[in-house]
Amino acid sequence: MRIVDLIVKKRDKQELTTEEINAFVEAYTIGEVPDYQASAWAMAVLLNGMTSRETTDLTLAMANSGDTLDLSGVVEIAVDKHSTGGVGDKTTLAVEPIVASTGLPVGKMSGRGLGFSGGTLDKMESIPGYRTDLTEEEFLAQLKEVGVVLTGQTGELAPADGKLYGLRDVTGTVPSMPLIASSIMSKKIAAGAQRIVLDVKVGVGAFMETQEEARELAEIMVEIGRLAGRQAVALISDMNQPLGIAVGNALEVVEAIETLQGGGPYDFREHSLEVATHLLVLGGKAENEEAARQMAEETISSGAAWEKFRQLVEVQGGDVSYIDDPSKLPKAKLIETVKAERGGYLAEINAREVGETAVTLGAGRQKKGDPVNHAVGIMIHRNVGDQLAAGDDLFEIHAGDEKTLQEAKQRVMAAHVWSDEAVEPLPLFYGVVK
Amino acid sequence: MRIVDLIVKKRDKQELTTEEINAFVEAYTIGEVPDYQASAWAMAVLLNGMTSRETTDLTLAMANSGDTLDLSGVVEIAVDKHSTGGVGDKTTLAVEPIVASTGLPVGKMSGRGLGFSGGTLDKMESIPGYRTDLTEEEFLAQLKEVGVVLTGQTGELAPADGKLYGLRDVTGTVPSMPLIASSIMSKKIAAGAQRIVLDVKVGVGAFMETQEEARELAEIMVEIGRLAGRQAVALISDMNQPLGIAVGNALEVVEAIETLQGGGPYDFREHSLEVATHLLVLGGKAENEEAARQMAEETISSGAAWEKFRQLVEVQGGDVSYIDDPSKLPKAKLIETVKAERGGYLAEINAREVGETAVTLGAGRQKKGDPVNHAVGIMIHRNVGDQLAAGDDLFEIHAGDEKTLQEAKQRVMAAHVWSDEAVEPLPLFYGVVK
Repeated sequence: MRIVDLIVKKRDKQELTTEEINAFVEAYTIGEVPDYQASAWAMAVLLNGMTSRETTDLTLAMANSGDTLDLSGVVEIAVDKHSTGGVGDKTTLAVEPIVASTGLPVGKMSGRGLGFSGGTLDKMESIPGYRTDLTEEEFLAQLKEVGVVLTGQTGELAPADGKLYGLRDVTGTVPSMPLIASSIMSKKIAAGAQRIVLDVKVGVGAFMETQEEARELAEIMVEIGRLAGRQAVALISDMNQPLGIAVGNALEVVEAIETLQGGGPYDFREHSLEVATHLLVLGGKAENEEAARQMAEETISSGAAWEKFRQLVEVQGGDVSYIDDPSKLPKAKLIETVKAERGGYLAEINAREVGETAVTLGAGRQKKGDPVNHAVGIMIHRNVGDQLAAGDDLFEIHAGDEKTLQEAKQRVMAAHVWSDEAVEPLPLFYGVVK
Repeated sequence: MRIVDLIVKKRDKQELTTEEINAFVEAYTIGEVPDYQASAWAMAVLLNGMTSRETTDLTLAMANSGDTLDLSGVVEIAVDKHSTGGVGDKTTLAVEPIVASTGLPVGKMSGRGLGFSGGTLDKMESIPGYRTDLTEEEFLAQLKEVGVVLTGQTGELAPADGKLYGLRDVTGTVPSMPLIASSIMSKKIAAGAQRIVLDVKVGVGAFMETQEEARELAEIMVEIGRLAGRQAVALISDMNQPLGIAVGNALEVVEAIETLQGGGPYDFREHSLEVATHLLVLGGKAENEEAARQMAEETISSGAAWEKFRQLVEVQGGDVSYIDDPSKLPKAKLIETVKAERGGYLAEINAREVGETAVTLGAGRQKKGDPVNHAVGIMIHRNVGDQLAAGDDLFEIHAGDEKTLQEAKQRVMAAHVWSDEAVEPLPLFYGVVK
């Protein structure tokens, strides 16, 4: 089998066999396929597409290209969640404790932020001492004993995906649904997930900007799950405006804590409960969504979810005094509240602009490896559809210096679009794909 | 300007600007664009196409990527011809002397054979002493003084094309009309050609297998010529059966000599006169095709064309005694005539099979750099449409050893397809694109 023949097949809109896809991924992983062949192949895939069968084969081949976690001896049903990334998306911080506190173990490997999209590990590292570098042994032991883990990747999961993603990034071959879907699913499957809730964000602050794209990606991933013998449910959720109020690492930890203690902003609380509901059903903890939802709410009202979060932080080496008294968490030097310059209805709060402004404040990174500042960020006090009077609090900038503060004020102000007419609030979800 | 943005533009079916194409080719030539970006771009071009303007810009950028020949001080109008390659295609050997002997200078840089398709340089090197490695100075001086040159490339013409072609060969991106057309035209333009006759072969023994493809390629190249301020005419000629009788280096030289001396097979003679006719019109030597055709025929009947060929061989160091007495040219050890095993009409003489068999005899090469045997080859005595009786001479194998002889006999026999019904002869040409 010559690699060039596989490229030609895909170029000519033919379907690759399982053997061909396996051979391609294996050879690429060990460096036997040069990048110039892989990139030509990726462009052919982007322009000509792949069938669900091909996409699933690619997913499994990439999942098997490196280390894989076998959770079967540790948990009965291995559940996991994945968000395609957004602004203010601290969902994992609330959902994991909610779910784990019902007795359904959740071990999760998260990533770091890049560009306008924040990362769960960066948020958790706002808590002094919190370790995100557990070994595989530590991961498995903690999952078994404590029932909750939140760390970075152990070992080298799906290295073929890592290599291919790096190549796609510089060859214009990122926005291919089969390649995006297989990239996400390969890492989840390599990490041992059997039942997966996918949080597919859509809107200006997400990688999928239209509902059609988001639904297509959701459907492909759910189908991959089915064909790969896993089970996946995908929520299509709004990311036109930031999720919750807080955007920035420590600020988001505080919001997650408030939510776990029964407070927190309505949209973030609802979003978290919905994701938790689907995880509880998939994990066999509840018979239906109604029962699961009630169970999730009870973990908050009983304090169980908060206790689970506290336990998670403690067992991973975090100083719990910082979450018991969140005022101890990193605080920005300059905090300024900005008020509405006019009255009216909010027609838009551009999540991407808010996310990118948070990066300029230091909360995120332009490129891999950049350091982040855990203290800085933005509090978006309003939602699309809100009616305000001039002088009402609009947002808050938490900055490290005067220059970035002033720039951020201007930019976030411009991200708020006003209307004189009443504006419908944005929905939290646009649909569920099962 | 980031290269990845140019890839994305082409991926998204947008038109690249002249500046973008120039920047891409310049950066690629000096190694600043990695092959993995160039191959992704080439796949996007193959699948999404390019406009004539883009293709012309690519042609000119590649033509200007290395050495260029300026013939303006040497000839009034620089004419050239190019064949897309076929089996038994010794056209240049007859056409150059015909045209040059009218007083229209022709300096041509040719290539070597690869795969089933033969190469002009290999044929000329059948003549002991003939040099195909003239320097640029020698090329220019000989063109000025003798009016005819036939050699390999002087200097490094269109290195961007050479580099890109090598990459396309291993990434499934060869069969793109804009890329094929710009590859051919860039080399012609770098070699200084102003008026070009393109001989676009079509059929089983050509790179273009359908008339639609051949016409498309012809039209693109003629349009590139127009947009680049050159003038091109493209003949679409048959390559289902071999051109002429002889396939093999020395055998083809003999056939060219016979043709220049007024003999030779009808189809090859006609083909050569037609190509010469268009060159004479383009070069301003004749007012119309009728006058040009008459002029070309007269160079043969007067002996002028043969004298010009003799002069060409002599000035490039060839031993003219070998062409004055072609029986001195390299001769194969084993020559066997194969007779028709049955009577009937010839429905097909598969040119590709004949060409590939010639390679197995040693007349051509499987890969670049392989040596060739000038003596061996095949004589195809018949044409599609001929009516034969069992026992009539069908073809002749000229081989270096018994094993390849026997294999070749079988294979060439199988390349002849018979019919009991009368079969129409194949046309020589399917059309002309101006």
